[in-house]
Amino acid sequence: MANKTEVIAEPGKQELFIKREFDFPRDLVFRAHIDRDIYQKWVGPNDLKMTIDRWEPHAGGSFNFTHERGGHKYNFFGVYHEVLAPERIVGTFEFDGLPERGHVILGVTMFEELTGNRCRLVHQSVFRSVEDRDGMVMSGMERGVREGYEKLDVLLAGEGTAATAVPRG
Amino acid sequence: MANKTEVIAEPGKQELFIKREFDFPRDLVFRAHIDRDIYQKWVGPNDLKMTIDRWEPHAGGSFNFTHERGGHKYNFFGVYHEVLAPERIVGTFEFDGLPERGHVILGVTMFEELTGNRCRLVHQSVFRSVEDRDGMVMSGMERGVREGYEKLDVLLAGEGTAATAVPRG
Repeated sequence: MANKTEVIAEPGKQELFIKREFDFPRDLVFRAHIDRDIYQKWVGPNDLKMTIDRWEPHAGGSFNFTHERGGHKYNFFGVYHEVLAPERIVGTFEFDGLPERGHVILGVTMFEELTGNRCRLVHQSVFRSVEDRDGMVMSGMERGVREGYEKLDVLLAGEGTAATAVPRG
Repeated sequence: MANKTEVIAEPGKQELFIKREFDFPRDLVFRAHIDRDIYQKWVGPNDLKMTIDRWEPHAGGSFNFTHERGGHKYNFFGVYHEVLAPERIVGTFEFDGLPERGHVILGVTMFEELTGNRCRLVHQSVFRSVEDRDGMVMSGMERGVREGYEKLDVLLAGEGTAATAVPRG
């Protein structure tokens, strides 16, 4: 049975947490977050086409990618504050399709080692307001996150053995 | 009489606001936040020596500066998500003297035009937890912020006329 994706958004708080376990080693799951080719293959819901335009996964670098569905393009942009393999990625994140700019999110993704070559991902998103947070939850992000991790499971199952031989970072 | 610095930290919230008016035009106060030489002269409390090591005030750039007092050095690091002259600066901020890394802050500084060639600065800091926010407030940041803006007032009063002739951004 697949591991479950939990999205935890306590009422009235300007943050949310995403928790997901993987039946793969931490190094591999971390690497799927910084390797451009792998990341492009799994992030986002199933019905969107993902294109990465800029990809600099290191402290002080930035990223830019587009989700496309039925002729509509959704652009996402952010900067990396810290990329600490294989433990933590800290950065900003903004969706440019909102009515105004400036609704930036601080994102912290933590990768915890579990026994049996498994790992747990804990992501925290911190928003400028409870309204920003609620807007994100209402946008259907939970489905996109869940479907993305399901794609990642399939990818890692197929490429796992080869990819573990690649060094960190 | 000098303009008052307000630090607003509502109990139980993972954010704080800083509000301060200036008897100077918005362009000038914005510029004092992105010009390396000017920034180095005013940020922080009176009894610290400020040195900027890296200064890239544009989206995707990063910064690094040191505060020094009595042989102790305090290092601050962050990345810029958005630098929109003369309205808004969005970025991350971290103090490397804490017991562990990862306590990153999202900072949004907004510059509002007021009548009479005056302006209002509104800064929002968003923290990963209420504890992080309370720790910052307890660290004496309010004095540092207030003294910094007082230095900025003096600087702008001295250099104001010449600096207004310099174009934005």
